[in-house]
Amino acid sequence: MPADVARPGAGVLVAIGGAEDKLGDRTILGRFVQLAGGDRARVVVLASASSLGEELTGLYERVFAELGAAEVRSLRPRTREEAEAAGPAEEVTRATGVFMTGGNQLRLSMVVAGTRLGAALLDAHRRGAVVGGTSAGASALSAHMVAFGGPGEVPKQRLAHMAAGLGLLPGAVIDQHFTQRGRMGRLLLLVAESPSQLGIGVDEDTAAVITPDGVLEVLGKGTVTVVDGTRAQSDAFEVRARRPVLVSGVVLHALPPGYRFDLGARVLLPRLQAIGAGAPERRRLRRGRRTPAAEREASR
Amino acid sequence: MPADVARPGAGVLVAIGGAEDKLGDRTILGRFVQLAGGDRARVVVLASASSLGEELTGLYERVFAELGAAEVRSLRPRTREEAEAAGPAEEVTRATGVFMTGGNQLRLSMVVAGTRLGAALLDAHRRGAVVGGTSAGASALSAHMVAFGGPGEVPKQRLAHMAAGLGLLPGAVIDQHFTQRGRMGRLLLLVAESPSQLGIGVDEDTAAVITPDGVLEVLGKGTVTVVDGTRAQSDAFEVRARRPVLVSGVVLHALPPGYRFDLGARVLLPRLQAIGAGAPERRRLRRGRRTPAAEREASR
Repeated sequence: MPADVARPGAGVLVAIGGAEDKLGDRTILGRFVQLAGGDRARVVVLASASSLGEELTGLYERVFAELGAAEVRSLRPRTREEAEAAGPAEEVTRATGVFMTGGNQLRLSMVVAGTRLGAALLDAHRRGAVVGGTSAGASALSAHMVAFGGPGEVPKQRLAHMAAGLGLLPGAVIDQHFTQRGRMGRLLLLVAESPSQLGIGVDEDTAAVITPDGVLEVLGKGTVTVVDGTRAQSDAFEVRARRPVLVSGVVLHALPPGYRFDLGARVLLPRLQAIGAGAPERRRLRRGRRTPAAEREASR
Repeated sequence: MPADVARPGAGVLVAIGGAEDKLGDRTILGRFVQLAGGDRARVVVLASASSLGEELTGLYERVFAELGAAEVRSLRPRTREEAEAAGPAEEVTRATGVFMTGGNQLRLSMVVAGTRLGAALLDAHRRGAVVGGTSAGASALSAHMVAFGGPGEVPKQRLAHMAAGLGLLPGAVIDQHFTQRGRMGRLLLLVAESPSQLGIGVDEDTAAVITPDGVLEVLGKGTVTVVDGTRAQSDAFEVRARRPVLVSGVVLHALPPGYRFDLGARVLLPRLQAIGAGAPERRRLRRGRRTPAAEREASR
């Protein structure tokens, strides 16, 4: 049964795997500003996940201004009391785009989820504002959020920990720094234990751009890995702490930039005819990489 | 901000803390059958949480028949494939009450959540069927479900583990065997990490009966403990594994039988005038217990 991901009329979500390019082409952050309205964009930077202060918000303010946004404001409530105040919620209500920084997603969700600011964020998304997040800010988009966990390629009991996120994306758990931090094991464990949730692992400098009709498009440099546990078998309910967990029959999708995936039907979509400037280069790159791999295979 | 618990028109939920009386007065199971329509009740026993087979389902079939239900059927899908089949979903579609046994809530949710059977269960609840569960079956009612965890009175990092439940009760995490297994610490940790979720701890032979308008009534022998972390402070996002976690400012409600609580407003409700046959006895019992406690206090 497909995940409940379609929300017609709502805004686009941009889940970035961390370490996105801020000085070069800025493909991902540029797309974010474009989705927020370009030179009419009113962007709010929400930095509650971060232990850094103006150093981080100042950087994003400068980048979004350089990318043409009309207005950029920063918010960094540190307590639920601050998140209940009128000011931050009003800033979000006026925004056409909200960008959540990296840091610690549990700090972000513990401060914001279920508060006035959290409700304003959900409302903004429903009325069509784009909501983006990088690293911790990407994970916090999920209703069922990965809170923390260890590295490793195979699922082991208690490798990952879940908490309630901000609820902008029901039906999917978003993990980040995916390849860089070896997080396949924890995402497999999460979907094995919660097969109603699709697992989405986003690499660094890569984004999963999710439209209101539940189509995920990959943007940036790396891969977005989608793990579908709907038909998987697992013994996760009876395995002791730290022991390996059976996860058999998971359907995995490793999606390079330019590819699109239907989260509701859980199927790869055909590539668009006009795919944009980056795609032909990427295809040439793949053919280039394929040759040595074929040679290696032939020499075995 | 109140939890999103009101679902007008939906059925009543009966969350039992395990070890409910099956041979004596059977207050809780009797109420379940009454809510399912009494002598017109069509009850389905869903036993996927359990490793026991007909021994357990046979017991519940006999008890519900003795309590006057018109029809009792048992289902025990063991795989998601079985839960996708038409038969079990059709049984649930025809039911006026679904009762989920104890066992392992992760096994139950891993088999049922997001399948055709899981969807039929949500539909049955929405159209007014009563859905009850004991022990694991109670926890699985939640959208954010406690999967497992350790005992202890104080919250420690990684003491509890969360997964996606069946989604019948959004906005609250239900724990069970609450007093008997010392689960205060894990419930405090869960609401500290996920303050958007109300914590509900149900004792053995005790039920939280939750109406569609979000009113919780306590039934049976023990206490229902409600933990509200909306305004709590916590350092759970940065504490290392097994270390104590700060949870300061949680509002706790220990609710004896006969009391009612508004889950949306998170406040105790006035007691009803006509409270039913069991209440005067309970009040006498409490007065009886209060005397020795007062004496002990006076002798300090």
